[in-house]
Formats: sequence, C-alpha cells, structure tokens
Amino acid sequence: MAIGGLSDSISGGRIRLGMVGGGEGALIGAVHRLSARMDGHYDLVAGALSASPDKARRSGEALGLSPDRIYDDYEAMAKAEAARADGIEAVAIVTPNHVHAGPTYAFLKAGVHVICDKPLTLSLDDAKKMKAAVESSGRIFALTHNYTGYPLVRRARAMAAAGELGEIRLVQVEYPQDWLTGPLEQSGHKQAEWRVDPARSGAGGALGDIGTHAYNLADFIVGIEVTEIAADLTSFGPGRRLDDNVQMMLRYANGARGSLWASQVAPGNENGLRVRVYGTKASLTWAQANPNEMMFAPLGEPIRILTRGGPGSGPADARVTRVPAGHPEGYLEGFANIYTDIALAIKAARTGARPPEGVMFPTIDDGVKGMAFIEAAVKSSRANGAWTKL
Amino acid sequence: MAIGGLSDSISGGRIRLGMVGGGEGALIGAVHRLSARMDGHYDLVAGALSASPDKARRSGEALGLSPDRIYDDYEAMAKAEAARADGIEAVAIVTPNHVHAGPTYAFLKAGVHVICDKPLTLSLDDAKKMKAAVESSGRIFALTHNYTGYPLVRRARAMAAAGELGEIRLVQVEYPQDWLTGPLEQSGHKQAEWRVDPARSGAGGALGDIGTHAYNLADFIVGIEVTEIAADLTSFGPGRRLDDNVQMMLRYANGARGSLWASQVAPGNENGLRVRVYGTKASLTWAQANPNEMMFAPLGEPIRILTRGGPGSGPADARVTRVPAGHPEGYLEGFANIYTDIALAIKAARTGARPPEGVMFPTIDDGVKGMAFIEAAVKSSRANGAWTKL
Amino acid sequence: MAIGGLSDSISGGRIRLGMVGGGEGALIGAVHRLSARMDGHYDLVAGALSASPDKARRSGEALGLSPDRIYDDYEAMAKAEAARADGIEAVAIVTPNHVHAGPTYAFLKAGVHVICDKPLTLSLDDAKKMKAAVESSGRIFALTHNYTGYPLVRRARAMAAAGELGEIRLVQVEYPQDWLTGPLEQSGHKQAEWRVDPARSGAGGALGDIGTHAYNLADFIVGIEVTEIAADLTSFGPGRRLDDNVQMMLRYANGARGSLWASQVAPGNENGLRVRVYGTKASLTWAQANPNEMMFAPLGEPIRILTRGGPGSGPADARVTRVPAGHPEGYLEGFANIYTDIALAIKAARTGARPPEGVMFPTIDDGVKGMAFIEAAVKSSRANGAWTKL
Amino acid sequence: MAIGGLSDSISGGRIRLGMVGGGEGALIGAVHRLSARMDGHYDLVAGALSASPDKARRSGEALGLSPDRIYDDYEAMAKAEAARADGIEAVAIVTPNHVHAGPTYAFLKAGVHVICDKPLTLSLDDAKKMKAAVESSGRIFALTHNYTGYPLVRRARAMAAAGELGEIRLVQVEYPQDWLTGPLEQSGHKQAEWRVDPARSGAGGALGDIGTHAYNLADFIVGIEVTEIAADLTSFGPGRRLDDNVQMMLRYANGARGSLWASQVAPGNENGLRVRVYGTKASLTWAQANPNEMMFAPLGEPIRILTRGGPGSGPADARVTRVPAGHPEGYLEGFANIYTDIALAIKAARTGARPPEGVMFPTIDDGVKGMAFIEAAVKSSRANGAWTKL
Repeated sequence: MAIGGLSDSISGGRIRLGMVGGGEGALIGAVHRLSARMDGHYDLVAGALSASPDKARRSGEALGLSPDRIYDDYEAMAKAEAARADGIEAVAIVTPNHVHAGPTYAFLKAGVHVICDKPLTLSLDDAKKMKAAVESSGRIFALTHNYTGYPLVRRARAMAAAGELGEIRLVQVEYPQDWLTGPLEQSGHKQAEWRVDPARSGAGGALGDIGTHAYNLADFIVGIEVTEIAADLTSFGPGRRLDDNVQMMLRYANGARGSLWASQVAPGNENGLRVRVYGTKASLTWAQANPNEMMFAPLGEPIRILTRGGPGSGPADARVTRVPAGHPEGYLEGFANIYTDIALAIKAARTGARPPEGVMFPTIDDGVKGMAFIEAAVKSSRANGAWTKL
Repeated sequence: MAIGGLSDSISGGRIRLGMVGGGEGALIGAVHRLSARMDGHYDLVAGALSASPDKARRSGEALGLSPDRIYDDYEAMAKAEAARADGIEAVAIVTPNHVHAGPTYAFLKAGVHVICDKPLTLSLDDAKKMKAAVESSGRIFALTHNYTGYPLVRRARAMAAAGELGEIRLVQVEYPQDWLTGPLEQSGHKQAEWRVDPARSGAGGALGDIGTHAYNLADFIVGIEVTEIAADLTSFGPGRRLDDNVQMMLRYANGARGSLWASQVAPGNENGLRVRVYGTKASLTWAQANPNEMMFAPLGEPIRILTRGGPGSGPADARVTRVPAGHPEGYLEGFANIYTDIALAIKAARTGARPPEGVMFPTIDDGVKGMAFIEAAVKSSRANGAWTKL
Repeated sequence: MAIGGLSDSISGGRIRLGMVGGGEGALIGAVHRLSARMDGHYDLVAGALSASPDKARRSGEALGLSPDRIYDDYEAMAKAEAARADGIEAVAIVTPNHVHAGPTYAFLKAGVHVICDKPLTLSLDDAKKMKAAVESSGRIFALTHNYTGYPLVRRARAMAAAGELGEIRLVQVEYPQDWLTGPLEQSGHKQAEWRVDPARSGAGGALGDIGTHAYNLADFIVGIEVTEIAADLTSFGPGRRLDDNVQMMLRYANGARGSLWASQVAPGNENGLRVRVYGTKASLTWAQANPNEMMFAPLGEPIRILTRGGPGSGPADARVTRVPAGHPEGYLEGFANIYTDIALAIKAARTGARPPEGVMFPTIDDGVKGMAFIEAAVKSSRANGAWTKL
Repeated sequence: MAIGGLSDSISGGRIRLGMVGGGEGALIGAVHRLSARMDGHYDLVAGALSASPDKARRSGEALGLSPDRIYDDYEAMAKAEAARADGIEAVAIVTPNHVHAGPTYAFLKAGVHVICDKPLTLSLDDAKKMKAAVESSGRIFALTHNYTGYPLVRRARAMAAAGELGEIRLVQVEYPQDWLTGPLEQSGHKQAEWRVDPARSGAGGALGDIGTHAYNLADFIVGIEVTEIAADLTSFGPGRRLDDNVQMMLRYANGARGSLWASQVAPGNENGLRVRVYGTKASLTWAQANPNEMMFAPLGEPIRILTRGGPGSGPADARVTRVPAGHPEGYLEGFANIYTDIALAIKAARTGARPPEGVMFPTIDDGVKGMAFIEAAVKSSRANGAWTKL
C-alpha cells in the first residue's frame, strides 16, 4: 500500500481526533482536517469548532460529527470526551494565539494528546509554564511548524547533519508576504484583524506570524543554536501597533552568521519563505514556492538540482513522499507529514514503544524557543537593535 | 469550512467506494485512495485489490476493510455489493489497461458508478462498445485524466474559451520522461514490464501511457478538435516492442497547427508535461513540474506570471483550490479535484439534480477520443508518417 | 592581456575590413561592426554601405571612413580596394538574402576573404555554384551562424563529441518569435517587408530566417547528419506568401529522431531559440535567452547547472570567454567570437599556417546545408509532409 | 547606424585614451579596454600598463601602442602626454585600490579626464581630498560602478523616480560570491592576495570589493539616502585580516528599511548581485546573473516579466541597448554603457555643451559616498553593530 515512502496502511486503526476552533470561515482548521485525513490515520469525531453555539453546531454538522460530540466550550468537551469509552485520543487546537493555552491545559488534564498551532502562547513565561504542564502530563504535544514536514526540508536537515555542507558559516532565511501592504485590517478582514492586535497575537506581528516560521525552519535544518540577535522591527501600516516588517541579524553558537527577514508589506510575495545555508564545503537553497526542488552547490562543482524523490534521495525525505519524482507535492502534503508522524508517535505511545525510525515533529521545546525568539527580537528592537541573547 | 474554494463540508454524507486493483506494491491505487479521502467525500468500504487471494486479504486488512468486503474477484464483488443495502455506490478501477473493460461492465451492470484509469481499453472498437454500455447504464463513468484537475489548467481552459488568447494558431505539448532510457523492463520492474507489453498495454507504449495525457491536456484547454495527425513512433530500447518515443505533428479543425512529443527515454525529465498555446492575441504556458504558475503573454505586453489563487484568479480555478496563493498545491490536489467533482456529480445524480456550476471531469467520450488518438498515431506511423484522420 | 580565455593582444595587427550593406537604418550591420571591434582584430576602412549614394556617404562619414573609401557600388568597391596597397583583406556582407551572391563573387574575385550573413542564397543551386567559386578562390568564406559562437554551445558540441551524452537519440530544437503575429509588413516595417517577400528572402520565410538557425545550431552540437525531414509550413498572417510557422520532424543518420519548430507568430517569444539533446547517458538543454547556463542531466543523477566559465569548463568554451563566470556574456560576445575566430584564421592564412587549436566558424558548407534544408522543407510541405531526403 | 538605442556613429571622432595598470595578467584592464572599444568612441594610444618596465613594454606592444607612448611610470606618462599635441584626453585607472589616488592627481593636473575603478581610495579623508582636487580641476571624473550601466537598472531607477513603486519601504540587496570560501590567498592567487591585504585594499574586504557595488546599485535605483547602518563584519577565512562576509541593516531618510549582504564565502554564488525594492504600490527585482529580465510586481496584480528592450521599455533603458529584446546583453555591454556615456560627456565638454539627455555615470560623489559607507560599516561593526550614521 506504499504511496511513495508513505503508506496508507493503517495498522493500529484510526486515531479518534477532536478539534478546537476551525469552524465556518476559518482557514487553518480545514488545513488541519485535510492533513489528518490524508493518510487515513485519524477520524475526526468531536469538536468545539466555535465559541458561538449556533456556529459550532452548524460547523459540526457540516463535518458529519455526531450531535452529542459537537461542543461550544472546550472545557466541557475535554471533560465529556474524557468520560467516554470512545473519547478522543488527540485534539487539534487551531484557534488564534491567545486561545492556545486554555485548551492545551484542559486536554492535557483530560489525558488527551495535543496538536497545537504556532506561536505557542502570548509570552515566554506562559510558554515555560506550558512546557512544565506538558512534561508532567506524559502526553504528546506537537506544534504545527508545518514547513518542517516538506520532504526536501527533511533532506536538508539530514545533509547538514551528515556534514555534507562542511562547517556552517552563513544562514540567510526570509519570509516575505504582501497581504498587509495596504491597511487590510481596516476593511473588516478577520485574518488581518487579529494578526495586528497585540491582545490576540502577542508581542509579535509579522514576527510571530511568519518570523517564527522562518526561524524554526532555519533552526530545524541547521541544528546549531542562535545565541544572539539584533532586530529592527517596523510598522509601516498606518496606525498598526504590531510590526509588519522584521530585519534581523543572527549569531550562531559556532560563530556562524545569519540574516532573517520577515515582511507582510512586500508586494509580489505570496508566501516567499526561502532558506539558504552556506558551509565550508557546500550550500543548500530551498524555497517554499517550488518545494520539490533544492539547489545543492558543492564548492567548485556545478550546482545540482535535487528533486523530491529524485536521484540521490535519502531516507529522510523518501519516507515522507507519496508520489514519484516529477509529480509535485505541496503545502498540504508537508502539513500532512507532520500529522502522520504525530499519528505514528501516538500509536507507539499506546504501547510505550519507540516511534518508527525517522518520525519527527515540532514539540513544546520548539514552542518555547519560538517565544524566546519573539521576546528577544522585541527587546532588541526596543533597545535600538542591540545584540540580545536568546 | 472553506479550504480555499473547496469545502470539506460533506453535505450528502460520504459516498461508499470500492476499488479494483491497487493492492500491495501498486502505486496508482494509493493515489486514488488518497484523492478520495482528501475532501472527505468518500469512504472506501470494499475492494478486490488483487487477483491473488492472499494479497487481496492482506491489502484489504491493511486498509481497514471489513473482512466480508474483501474480494479477490471483481465479478463476485460486483454481485455481492449490489446485493447489500449498504453496497458501494462507486468503484475505482486502477488495474493495468487490459483489465479496465471487465470490471467496468461488471459494475455498470451492478448499478455502480465507475471511476477508471486511462487509457480506456486496448482498442478503439472496445472503447466504442464500452461507451454504448455506459450510455445505456445511466451510470456515471469518469476517466482519471488527472491533469485536467489542476486549477491553472482549468483556468487556461476558461481563458481560451473566453477568447483571451484570440484565435488559436499553435499548440505545443510535450510529456518527456526518462525512466525507460535503460532496459528497466529486463530487471524485474513491474511497472516497466506491463507498460512495454502489448498484451497488457495495447498498441501504444509511451503513446498510450503519457501521449494520451498530453493529447487530453491540450484538448481540454484548447477545445478545438484535432482533425489529423502525422506520427513517428520509435522504440529505442533494445528489443522493446512498443514505442518509447512519439513525435507528432497536429492539424486542428480551425487551421491551427501543433506538435506533440512524448518520450520515456529523455534523461533529465521526471514528468515533464508542458503545454503552450498561442493565439492571435496572447499565449499561455503551463508545466506540471511547477503547476502553481502559468505564463500569460498578451501580444505586445510583458509576460505575466499567473499564480494559482493569486491576482486575477477566476472562478474556474478558484473553486478547486484548497490553500492560499503561495502555498503550493500539487499532483495529489489536482487528482483529488477530479474525485471531488465526481463526488459532487454522484450526489447530484441521486436526486437527478444538476451538478454544481463548474463541476467537470473526463468521461467515456474522452476515453474514446484517447483510443482514437492511439489508433490514428499507430496507423500514421506505420504509413511512414502519412497524415491520418482522427 | 587575457580577457577570460580571449585576449585583446593583437599579434599580427588589425585586419582591414570592408562592409557591404549596413548603412543607416540597418540593424545587423551594426552588430557585425561591433563584433569586429570587440577584440580589436579589425579596422573598418571601407564600405558600400548603401546603394543610395547619399545614404552611403552619410553612413560612411558617420563611421569615420575616409571619403575615398566610401562606395555606393560593391563592384566598384571590390575593384578599387583590390588596386590599393592598403586595400581590405576581408569584407562583411550584411545585405538581404538576394544580395549575398553578387558581392561574394565580386570580392572573391578581388582576392578578399568574405564574411556573409545567412541564409546563403536564394536557392540550393546558387549555393552550390557559390561553393565552387569559394573553393577555387582559395579565400576564406565565413557564414555568420552566430549562435555557434556562444561558449556553452561550443561546450555542448565538445561534450556530445566526447560521448558524454552516450549515443544520441533525440533532438528537440525550436526558435519561436512573436514579431510577425500581427500584419507588421503592412505597416511599412522594413525588416518585416523583405522577410515576407519571396523575391528578397527566397523560398523560406520563418524557415529561412530562423529555421536555418535552429537547424544549424542542432547540427553544430550533434554532429550527426539529418537524413530526411517531414515538414508542415504554414502562413498564418493574412495574405502572407511565405511561411511564418514551421513544424518539422527529423530523422538522423544514426536512427535518432528530432523535432524542429520555428515560428514568428508565437506571442511571448522574443528570440526563444532553445535546443535539447538526449542521449543514452545524459541530456543537455540550452536556451539563448539565458545563454550562460546549460542544464546537464546524466541519467540517474541530479541535473547540473553548467555555467559559462564555471566549474567544469573545458577548453572549448573557456577559450571564447571574456569575463569570469557569473558576469553574463550575451549575443554580441557570441557574435564577436565568430569574428575573432575568423580573424585568427585570416592571420594564419597569411603565412599558410594552421589556425590555432579550437578556432571554428561556419563555412560555405554550412551555407549549402542550410539551403538544402530550406529546399527539402518546402518540398516536403508541398507534398503534404512526405518524408524528404536532405 | 543605430544599434538598438545606441549608435556607433562617432560624431566628434574618437577620444584618445590612456591606461594606468591593466598589463599582462590583469583582468579588469581588459574589460575597460573592451568597453572603450565597443561603440568606437575611444582609441587607446598610451599606457603605463605596469610598473615593471619589461612587462609594461610587452603589454603595450601586444596592444599595438606606439613605443614612445609605452610608459612604466604614470607620472612620466602624465607629463609626456600633456606635452604632446596628440596627447590623451582621458585616462583609465585600473590599478588596485591603493594606486587610485596617485594617478588621479597626476592626470588631473595634466588636464586629462579620469576614469577610475572603485573603491575610490583607502580612506574617507583621502576621498574628500580627491573630490576637492577633481572639482578644482574642471575635469570629468568617472567611477566605474559598472552595474549602473545595465539597461534594466537604468529603467528601475526611472521607474522608482516616476513613482511607479509608490513610497519606498524596503530595500534588500545582496552580492554573494564563493571564490574566497577556501584560503585562496595562500596559494599565490594574485587577485585574492591584494583583496585580503589592508595595505592595498583599505579597511574593507568583501565590504569594499563588492559591498560597495551592492550599496551603490541600491542607491542608484532608490535615490533615497541611507542615514544609518548597523553592520556585522566577519572574517571566516583562517588568518584573514579583512572581512569576507558583511551582514548589514539599513535605515533610509524616508523611514524605509533595508538589508545588505555581501559575501565571498558563499558556495554556489559566482556573482550573485541582486536587488529587490518594495514600495507601497509595487516592487522590482533584478539580478545580475540574468540581467535582461526584471520582475515588476504591482500590488494586487500578477507579476510582470520586464525584458530589456521588450514591451514597455522606456527611454532610460532603450537608449543604452544595442540588440533587440530576446538577444541577451551582458556585463560587457553594461560596462561599455558607462564608457560610452563618459565619451558623450567628454565630447560635450569640449565645447562646453550639455551632454545629451539621459547620459549618466558614477562620479567623484559616488566615490566619496562609497568610502563613507565603508568607514561607517567598519565603525559600526567594531562597536558591535551599533547604528552608525553615514
């Protein structure tokens, strides 16, 4: 039943999944559900899809949920599900940032594994508390930094770890978008509204929304700690209280240098996430817009176009592909890879087994690192770009 | 519950789906299953996944099928499912070409809608007979020429139909691959073996396997009939009995000219499907390798990069997208679009309603056209490239 | 004095050059002059730049020619220059096709080396006669199929010759333009006028103008004879008497197959010359629009981006580069390479020496081949695409 | 005699040119000479091509200089040429950085126009002194920041000035190379040796060599002053005393932000100069590797591929092109555009006329700005990246 390296054999059966948020009008909830469906490892059986009872009901019905498992209150849902023999094993939390913590505590307490959107919380302190709660719960906590699910990103990490780049010297990562170039939040656009609102987004605007993705992606590939950063956050949109542009210089533990740019005011960029890593022996370049290719440039040799599933693929990427090279995979497949790896970990956890070789997904530690990154960037920027420890 | 233009609301519930072929070791069966799962419109509940009883059983179990709905004989499956109150409504036939006809007749007779891989049959005569059977059955028959599911391909068709290209003059379509450059079929590779075997593939090698895709894609976009072709089929692989390279010139009903190239011996090409259409006013270029972009060149103006879901998207493509522009979609999403449109048609058929605006998928007519194309190409090539009517 | 592999040392001094055609309003004459100036090997000292005395004079003065060496009659120029002690050694003929033969005969007779634009003549018979005249003259005759001057084209030829592609199976070459999509020749556009006029262009329209370039480029790289072709020539422009679109299939002496497309009615194409060559071991892809890169795809390995002057450069390309890799060279440098190689051959001819290793340029034989190609294509198209020997 | 917008008519005759530096083994001297030859505006008639008498003589002879105008001492050359009736009008100084000032003073004093390589001097103080000397001399002083000669760079500047980008908010400019990734200077490589030597290069390594190009290019296009910078200079090469990597954040007078990256240790980059400018209305992206294309992204519309000489070209770029769109121009044509514009200015200066509309080239002011940039960057980096005024 192989689909590329992935299989849709569902040994262990399907995991009963719940969802908090993601009702009518939401975007990312649908992405999570699709990702859960893709390889057949989950059944969505319960949801508190909205705090509005009517909307919660309509949304649950549209998804075919049983009426008694449609909730408008995540606390109630956690309790009710915990009490059922066929209660959910895992929950996906797909709410705005300020509603990540509440459901997480509720479901961990109910013994349910948690899959949560990023950034983790509104502050680093909150993140650290949550980490303690996760650790004492013994439950799995996964953060959907989905870009780490792309097969070639997995391969990049493996190549860096194997020394194929030599000693790493430079990291250039960027995530430009253009959707907030104009004052979109003033026109009733919901996604824009909460993203520019400190009460719902936290201290970072573009910083938290996409800067954390850029940071996490580079961190995932490079595997060396950023020790300090110098940041210049700007709000170009008139009246905008959070940054919509992030310029940043990075210093790594091994002496490497880096640059990070995240922007929501850069016309012509839809989701221009791109990372370049340069070592003493070679470099890698990968961009999300065409994620099935990666440039590998060994010093003194012609650049090679590595393709997902193509010549020279290794196990790190091969195990998370579904179709042959030349048939492009995309954002949803990468997102689903995170879900599938979580499923494999959950199934292993049932018996205390180790997850299969190669299973990986972002954890509470990545969430804490992301919050530390946000706080350091805000602090540096307020200190006129002074180098600030992470 | 919007995911881009698509929704995972499953009004009408899930369609009970069966599958013929696609057991252990098969590739395309898994693609069909994933496509059926993607938007939640289907439940796979029965299968004759292999003619080998053991393999059929193991494969069915791995997919979580109920033991009484695991078959090793599609005739038996058709009868048994027809007799059940909860029998399948639709079946996916994912076997090699020579096993398309048998299951199709069996399931149509059982009142089951059919989703079948291409090319349709082993001969044009067989195809015409099947068309008669489909028409008299009143059932839906869908052919998975999946490339017509890509959003930008849908948009290209809409643009051509709306006259944005002017009068069409030229069509250049190609589908090069490289996997049969060496004698792969002599090394026990199953996919290679049946594709070079006339008994299982029919009269066309690369012609039937990928040439038909190229032809169908151009046909879908351009919407003008090819009236005659001049073909030069070659078998470069030593001892290979079917063509592995197709050169072809095309003439269209309106006087347009075209060129079609399909090859399985072109190193450096994974699945290099690409189409270019030139009219009196503008041209379009689309390639499968990076399907989220399409070049639109209005005469005398700069070329514009159209993106899936990006500026200027129209309803034809917007309704079949799941994620925002800049988050790439791929082969599986395009394939799933075919499945979802079939689902919407099946649900409409339950009540005799018309399918929603924009629903489209290849039908038995496309299958017949594909077989006519294969036969004309073989005939032309045997006549040393003489122009041959389609 | 090295400029890349090329030097502007002018051992042997400058060659005295004359020009026929290329006066005010001409384009290609200026390209020839610039190419002659680039490496310092020539001095333009005489010209019959126009048949109109006034225009000839104004043009000659603008270029700083001595008044006594400004002619309005190439016959007179040939005689006068032959009689001077400091007469020209070489002449560049940059007139429309129907004025290639006259000056060639005149200057060969005067003992002057000839550099002539393509296509050679108006007919194959004329071309063969000219070949006889060239051979009996003992003078150098060079045809400016300039694309063979691009360093990476030289490298492609060397790689093919060295067997790096294995046995060649497929050649796909194309040269689309869009400038004749509308009826430009009806608006007083001089370049358009003579190119659609059989009396001035010969039997081929797009065929002679750019089809010959495509054919010559493929021929230069592959080095295997095309034995027969099947062509479909079309005139899309209303009232146009010569073809503006060429579709063609090719058969090579070794059994290889090919396809050639040339068009002047393909919106979005400025000068889209592109060639792809596939062998049993690897393929090469090169496009004029970005001539500093070439894709090399060894079977079963990642595609490599070869750059002009970059890693892995060989002598064939290195000797004709002027600036380091990463600083792009273009059309004029390629054209100048032809001129410089001609200069080296002329200087060698002074003493009967062999030209330096690697010197190459298209000759009268290429001109004859081009005319044979045009005639065969016209003949095939008139015979409804019948395979026609070259 | 039009060659695109440019002409090789040499109204005003040729300018007598001298050269300091650029003898055997030098690279950039040959580039200057070729640029001077390209449009026919200069005659190289004198040179102090090397301080070594033998080498100076051999080099001069190879270029066809008259023996009495071959010098090994630029002071002597300045005096001798000033005394000749046919003395040089202009001199090109193509020596390493520490030998820019001496010849400049000598030739200005001799009444000769100066064309000088960048960066200007070894310190900002020196640069200011030179500016005073230039101004009091009344001679033309041109600095060969050659990238401003690319036609599409000219167009980008014109578009920004015309408000087509709206208010500029962001500038991302980078110039990565890879040639110093290894310790090349320890292997006897001359170009590498002087570039890592503070005595010959000044305070900046990659900063002065290519960082100034990046800064100048952005400055040329954007036309808004950088007010302060925060820089992090690194020397990755073992024992290297000058920076080989530059990370920098920029702040502009209008509140815009920017990022500049220059590196000589980034494998896979030959000369990866690239600039992106984002305004409230649109963005532009241009890269030197393929300089005939520029991406123009108006907010909310598809990205447009602008081509040199293609649809929508304006006078700023059209006047400095030589061949039609689709025939690529490159580095040498861009460099030659600087030389030709200088020639037009010199010819105008003869009579005190204004140069023709559109003539532009970098001047002593750009040289001073470049030195101020280098000094501020070094100062900022030594102050641990503190924001430093320019």
